[in-house]
Amino acid sequence: MVETVKLAEYLFARLKQLGIGAIHGVPGDFNLTLLDYVEPAGLQWVGNANELNAGYAADGYARIKGVGALITTFGVGELSAINAIAGAYAERAAVVHIVGTPDRPTQDERRLVHHTFNDGEFGRFAQMAVPVTVAQVDLKDPRTSPELIDHALRQCLLHSRPVYIQVPVDMVSAPVSAEPLRSEIRLPTAEPSAYSDSVIEQILERIYKAKQPVILVDGETRALGIVELVQKLVYLTGWASFTTAFGWGLLDETMPNVFGIYRGRFDTPAADTFVSESDLVFCFGPHFSTTNSYSKTSVPKAETAIHITHNEIRIGDKTFRDIPALLAVDQLVKKIDTSRVWDYPSYDKLSRPPPISYSEVLKDMPITQASFWPMVSTLVQEGDIVLGETGSAGHGCRDIPLPKHVRTFLPVTWLSIGYMVGAAQGAALAQRELIAASQYHGIKNARTILFIGDGSFQMTAQELGTIIRHNLNVTVVLINNDGYTIERVIHGLKQGYNDVASWRYLQAPAFFGAKEDTFTAKVKTLGEVQDLLETDAFKNIEGFKMVEVIMDREDVPEGPLVWLLQKQLNATK
Amino acid sequence: MVETVKLAEYLFARLKQLGIGAIHGVPGDFNLTLLDYVEPAGLQWVGNANELNAGYAADGYARIKGVGALITTFGVGELSAINAIAGAYAERAAVVHIVGTPDRPTQDERRLVHHTFNDGEFGRFAQMAVPVTVAQVDLKDPRTSPELIDHALRQCLLHSRPVYIQVPVDMVSAPVSAEPLRSEIRLPTAEPSAYSDSVIEQILERIYKAKQPVILVDGETRALGIVELVQKLVYLTGWASFTTAFGWGLLDETMPNVFGIYRGRFDTPAADTFVSESDLVFCFGPHFSTTNSYSKTSVPKAETAIHITHNEIRIGDKTFRDIPALLAVDQLVKKIDTSRVWDYPSYDKLSRPPPISYSEVLKDMPITQASFWPMVSTLVQEGDIVLGETGSAGHGCRDIPLPKHVRTFLPVTWLSIGYMVGAAQGAALAQRELIAASQYHGIKNARTILFIGDGSFQMTAQELGTIIRHNLNVTVVLINNDGYTIERVIHGLKQGYNDVASWRYLQAPAFFGAKEDTFTAKVKTLGEVQDLLETDAFKNIEGFKMVEVIMDREDVPEGPLVWLLQKQLNATK
Repeated sequence: MVETVKLAEYLFARLKQLGIGAIHGVPGDFNLTLLDYVEPAGLQWVGNANELNAGYAADGYARIKGVGALITTFGVGELSAINAIAGAYAERAAVVHIVGTPDRPTQDERRLVHHTFNDGEFGRFAQMAVPVTVAQVDLKDPRTSPELIDHALRQCLLHSRPVYIQVPVDMVSAPVSAEPLRSEIRLPTAEPSAYSDSVIEQILERIYKAKQPVILVDGETRALGIVELVQKLVYLTGWASFTTAFGWGLLDETMPNVFGIYRGRFDTPAADTFVSESDLVFCFGPHFSTTNSYSKTSVPKAETAIHITHNEIRIGDKTFRDIPALLAVDQLVKKIDTSRVWDYPSYDKLSRPPPISYSEVLKDMPITQASFWPMVSTLVQEGDIVLGETGSAGHGCRDIPLPKHVRTFLPVTWLSIGYMVGAAQGAALAQRELIAASQYHGIKNARTILFIGDGSFQMTAQELGTIIRHNLNVTVVLINNDGYTIERVIHGLKQGYNDVASWRYLQAPAFFGAKEDTFTAKVKTLGEVQDLLETDAFKNIEGFKMVEVIMDREDVPEGPLVWLLQKQLNATK
Repeated sequence: MVETVKLAEYLFARLKQLGIGAIHGVPGDFNLTLLDYVEPAGLQWVGNANELNAGYAADGYARIKGVGALITTFGVGELSAINAIAGAYAERAAVVHIVGTPDRPTQDERRLVHHTFNDGEFGRFAQMAVPVTVAQVDLKDPRTSPELIDHALRQCLLHSRPVYIQVPVDMVSAPVSAEPLRSEIRLPTAEPSAYSDSVIEQILERIYKAKQPVILVDGETRALGIVELVQKLVYLTGWASFTTAFGWGLLDETMPNVFGIYRGRFDTPAADTFVSESDLVFCFGPHFSTTNSYSKTSVPKAETAIHITHNEIRIGDKTFRDIPALLAVDQLVKKIDTSRVWDYPSYDKLSRPPPISYSEVLKDMPITQASFWPMVSTLVQEGDIVLGETGSAGHGCRDIPLPKHVRTFLPVTWLSIGYMVGAAQGAALAQRELIAASQYHGIKNARTILFIGDGSFQMTAQELGTIIRHNLNVTVVLINNDGYTIERVIHGLKQGYNDVASWRYLQAPAFFGAKEDTFTAKVKTLGEVQDLLETDAFKNIEGFKMVEVIMDREDVPEGPLVWLLQKQLNATK
């Protein structure tokens, strides 16, 4: 006789096997019985304030732990989350979106129930999920449900992109075969072949010939599961190495040959010249959207580039398909003969200047973007997670030199403002789970630091309630510059539509339920920033903290935003 | 030579012609230049905290003024709003969703820009809009743009459902023909025909024969534009008349033959018997979702029913198509011979009991659902808008006897919790515009009262910032019963997943930027409720106010929720 478990037990056992420790989401009447099985499966239920935030949180969690999940209810819940799912698709976060749906009789009989268009049509929302997920399954048959779940999860992991699983209410406790649970979900593996060997050989020959090579690590490197191997190549070659904004933090920046984010024409002349004149730019996990590539100016020239992508390798203008990144990089690490790699004389010119140190003379000066970011460098410690929300925050924080094992979230492609509040909740929870499981590089405590503008914060502010409720070590640094400054520098510098409501931001912790003695501070001058950074209660990692930093509405950090601002100012002259 | 205007001018001139006074939405870099034209067109820009809320607000505005609009940006913005658009579709709110999209060269060249999946594909999100809108147009050609705009707006008005208009950045200032603007958008009209006359004749015969007839006004009556005519029929016939929850407020309840919401088997035995035994239930704008029809128990029997829907009439089991509601009801009002209508002896038994009056003896009693709702009846004044959010609030407030010209929002079909906060903002703004234009039944001042539970409030709380910023006359009555009580009574009465974060709700006004002296109050006993209702500062209509009402987490108002709770309690015995 076949051993059975209930469908919900099967689903959650699988998620647990994948390393998921907590499920995000919001209860709704079509998922309540499903939720009964979350905690018995050894999973934590997070319970977000709304579904969009839950989706953002599951995405943030996934980027730290590899995979995340959320549960929403049919129609209203899933559609509220769909923008977050789209973002996970765009930037490759492995998010399992589970939707509780009406029971099969209700669907079969086309009953006119709530959370529908009152027309007996139940397939509409699943259709809307198709463009934003890499697999969609509807668990309507106990015989096939385990197979469909496994299929969806495999697609999720393989592509590091969201999948969509519908669970009708009457299927939650349906008995299904427990048999597949005995072995973990296995992803397709690849063995070296004569074909892949020949491509690897071509790459090695290019490596041995290179005289001014560069390694460029983009953000899909994480999704491809090759971070450790790429780090090894950076070590073995000793080559000048950069990341993109998306890849920032994936390389150990304390290594002498790692120089942070390459910023194309917005970088120092030395760095830009070095990369532009390089005879080999070896690029991993490329994701060259305009935002992530400084308007394409950090994209290496095709003729000097080798790209390692999801499942193909591009050398110059040739594409070699069906060579998984993991196989390729593993082979390179194994085969590289470091004695044949050219030892570039010196990268001195590439070194980033140390952050400007604070001078007492300036203590009464208002806080500028140029002065603020170097100062807050000291805040970030080993193992921290740094989120810089789309806007000036996400550009300014790039000047912070990263200690080891710091992961970052920056504006990449999707750029849905408000994302980072939810993502901070998910990332902080994942961080805590990893620390608790001693899987965090030996680090015993760390925090999640969110740099965010006022406009973005307003989008999703309620998720502070979830951060507070779960007592996560999150520090929010809110840049109050009186509206959407990033929009102002794009268009409408003085227009009212770029204003936002005037909130009393530092009342947020108390409003959202934090303990009365929660640390908050408002800083308006450089002296106040310095004092803050030296305050023990602020330096303490534990618990939730919030700081409001007052900046000018037309001030932006160096780089593309200044360039945009200049265009605006010239246009209005 | 053809007179031209810029495309954005054309679009906004049309919206203005339709009576739209304000546009909801959020700026984003693909819609900023479009926003430059909003205020010059004489329209107000609202500027919501996020797009979902903007969608809810546009929907609320549309239900009061007939049509509303919101502007979002490509991808991130539009998808955040899509659940609100779906709700407008489900419950027939005429919402024009305008999306600023990348310029045509960017799309044509398939550039890898932000707010995309970095794959050069720009049509994905428009595809996702198809299931939730009745027309979709992409304004890529100046020659056809006026026609496409007019087409979309016509569909929007005709179906009272959302439409989707994409405006590429480089089309905003494209010159288009101004010619069509000279005449307003005209909806197809219908003239009586031999066919429609014969159907009207059949209905009149049924009317003259009826001995115990009932009029039942459902919520689509508003969308069909027949509210005034139906009101006339209620007056001319003198028949016992009810609404559904969706239709509540569309009839003047101060008339002696109007008895509020018919609640099927949850109604008084007298009312339920009267309707069940009726020989003719004349139903307008039917929308019999399970929620709106008390689990189908308020749906009239087919053999005794006549239904007037969007474009068809159902008499018993026969359907007569292509007879618009407006034509049908107009003809009935014109043709009815009231001398042949049977005068039912007395509706005494149907009268709703007056609200229980407060007794000093009970002043220290905790507030129960049963005691609270009759007490707050006095709060609602002529011309007010009452929103009862999905949950106990949306059921409890049904016991309030409505003064004249009070419009209501109750749980109908979409039931997306959090909706009512945004809807309150939009409705209050529409109300203010109507009052300012002296189009509000001669009423000079009124307010919008939102009854909402704590869990729903958390979903969309930030829209209070918009309400405060625009100084709208909104009173929020927050029922704090410690979590999702409506979910608890459906399933998981004691389960942790039905808990929410513990906020300090009355700090909301200060946090969201209200003046320091904004009225707030927390009430825990019946005496405190009574004192509150007698407080001048609370009775004053002007401005924003917030009250927190503490109730028990397992207490629900009479009706379906009590029935659900009983099931839960029996199951756990």
